[in-house]
Amino acid sequence: MKDNIRYVVPYVPGEQPDEKNMIKLNTNENPYPPAPGVKSILDSYSAEELRLYPSPVSKDLVEEIAALHKVDCDRVFVGVGSDDVLALMFLTYFNSGKPILFPDITYSFYDVWADLYRIPYKRPKLDDNFRIVPEDYKQENGGIVIANPNAPTGVFESQETIESIIEANKDVVVIIDEAYVDFGPATMMSLADKYDNVVVVRTFSKSRSLAGMRIGYAIGSKALIKALNDVRYSFNSYPMTRLSIQVGAESIKDEKYFNECVEKIKKTREWTKAELKNLGFTFPDSQTNFIFAKHEKVSAVTIFEELRKKHIYVRHFNADRIDNYLRITIGTDEEMKTFINEVKEILERQ
Amino acid sequence: MKDNIRYVVPYVPGEQPDEKNMIKLNTNENPYPPAPGVKSILDSYSAEELRLYPSPVSKDLVEEIAALHKVDCDRVFVGVGSDDVLALMFLTYFNSGKPILFPDITYSFYDVWADLYRIPYKRPKLDDNFRIVPEDYKQENGGIVIANPNAPTGVFESQETIESIIEANKDVVVIIDEAYVDFGPATMMSLADKYDNVVVVRTFSKSRSLAGMRIGYAIGSKALIKALNDVRYSFNSYPMTRLSIQVGAESIKDEKYFNECVEKIKKTREWTKAELKNLGFTFPDSQTNFIFAKHEKVSAVTIFEELRKKHIYVRHFNADRIDNYLRITIGTDEEMKTFINEVKEILERQ
Repeated sequence: MKDNIRYVVPYVPGEQPDEKNMIKLNTNENPYPPAPGVKSILDSYSAEELRLYPSPVSKDLVEEIAALHKVDCDRVFVGVGSDDVLALMFLTYFNSGKPILFPDITYSFYDVWADLYRIPYKRPKLDDNFRIVPEDYKQENGGIVIANPNAPTGVFESQETIESIIEANKDVVVIIDEAYVDFGPATMMSLADKYDNVVVVRTFSKSRSLAGMRIGYAIGSKALIKALNDVRYSFNSYPMTRLSIQVGAESIKDEKYFNECVEKIKKTREWTKAELKNLGFTFPDSQTNFIFAKHEKVSAVTIFEELRKKHIYVRHFNADRIDNYLRITIGTDEEMKTFINEVKEILERQ
Repeated sequence: MKDNIRYVVPYVPGEQPDEKNMIKLNTNENPYPPAPGVKSILDSYSAEELRLYPSPVSKDLVEEIAALHKVDCDRVFVGVGSDDVLALMFLTYFNSGKPILFPDITYSFYDVWADLYRIPYKRPKLDDNFRIVPEDYKQENGGIVIANPNAPTGVFESQETIESIIEANKDVVVIIDEAYVDFGPATMMSLADKYDNVVVVRTFSKSRSLAGMRIGYAIGSKALIKALNDVRYSFNSYPMTRLSIQVGAESIKDEKYFNECVEKIKKTREWTKAELKNLGFTFPDSQTNFIFAKHEKVSAVTIFEELRKKHIYVRHFNADRIDNYLRITIGTDEEMKTFINEVKEILERQ
């Protein structure tokens, strides 16, 4: 029987501690609640309707996303978080047998999906400042995936850099993963209009405070979105719950609240950057809702473990080139003050 | 670019009309609302929590399912509807390169998943009474999938029949898809205890009136469930929304309400069977929440089209051997009375 089974090394998600009064800065969740309209949806939702299947095309949600980005509905794909969207993209777009390309330091799920679907891949190295070297993406390949801003580094690459890579790769699908884009300076969404081989991926889990509802989406050319939907409907006809569709649609409508939350987080991030610098940390300039930092003297593991004892959770990756870094999610002002104070004490004790 | 893309013929789900006063008997939904506790969950849920990722192991839901079936939590797998569970099983369990086996008439998604993952398959014919011929499953194969009761026929096979197939196939994974089992005479769940190569799949979409929340699950040996979870976590770490987990768990707690709904549907089914027989329909004896019937004189397509004009929706499959049948979901007593009256009029007009 063992020969029949696909064995994989699973992705290990960030731990999900569930303690009262913990400070959870380890999975890049938003510290603020979702738009107030989301609560109204739950309060007024008729539970009886849950007996019915959802719209297979996630109608209300797709329409709101299409309106937000000023594209037709047939250029929008939605899924169960951007992980679902990306996993289905790997299955759909990377069938040439040639290696796909993504940086050596990036979202740690890309190689897991490639392994799962037995897609060969190469991982060009980011330079010493964690920047992409565009020349590395001008070799023969079966597709490209770039997170921008990148995770877990927080680094943003300019449209010029991204477009130079696309220009050299018009025969393969290029995925731009914009999970953190709302905290950064610019989106590459216009490239999905300009190039029919480019798909841009987004999530409701970070800037929209809806990690718990599992909503992600992609915008691309009609042909690419159709191929993706065909695979989707061959996998699961009803991926989104009725509530995800309504809650997601509602959250888009409140642009003012959305902008306020994003601005608060960016402000807290800049404050946190200044404090960390004073304490002897260095980090690439983050354009996300986290900071990827290392200390000049004290090891990441030490700080990680000491913070844990105080019920403050950050993320540490036990991986080549980044094992002395911590990824610190931006929480509320109060959470970050507590965090900085605890770090200060930890450093003083070393 | 086209060479890189996986093109598939997508599954076509039953249409989802959304009209006031329609009678929707086409996708085997439950006519009764979910357990009253589900409404309480929505009413009291703190929308703020949606900013957080769900439990990656769907903790509360898995614990309730494990308690329901008196198994350990590590023998339970949950997914986004049983379609998600089954799709991941095909990917995980059927990697031998040998053809898998399932009946020629069965759930129409099985060949779609096999095609999607490029798994070879053979489809032994059901006999003229839509019964499985166990001998057909005693050839070399890479795995077996049996829906019991079967869809769209509604036919239930005895434990003796199912077990004789398992006994001849201990080296491959045997999946028993029990989507409709709560409306039938017996479950094969004990076979998942007895044989470590057997997995039983269930859904909350039919008997639990929660199609809109997308909840399915499987029970199998620890080793099989671990392999499945490893693939799951390599695909999407957080498949279930926070609300699906809570709503699903709550629904299991109300056994009395669950039994009442199931009994009402079974009673209505038996009434509908008698009425259809009087009108000249024949059908295999359904043990599900639908009846798969053909008329002695009037074609299925004619009845289907005429019912549509009256805003009554049933399901017709344009497929070999079954294109003169209609699959009629059991609704409320009132809905079925209207349905029978309309059919009577249609037949009189022919």
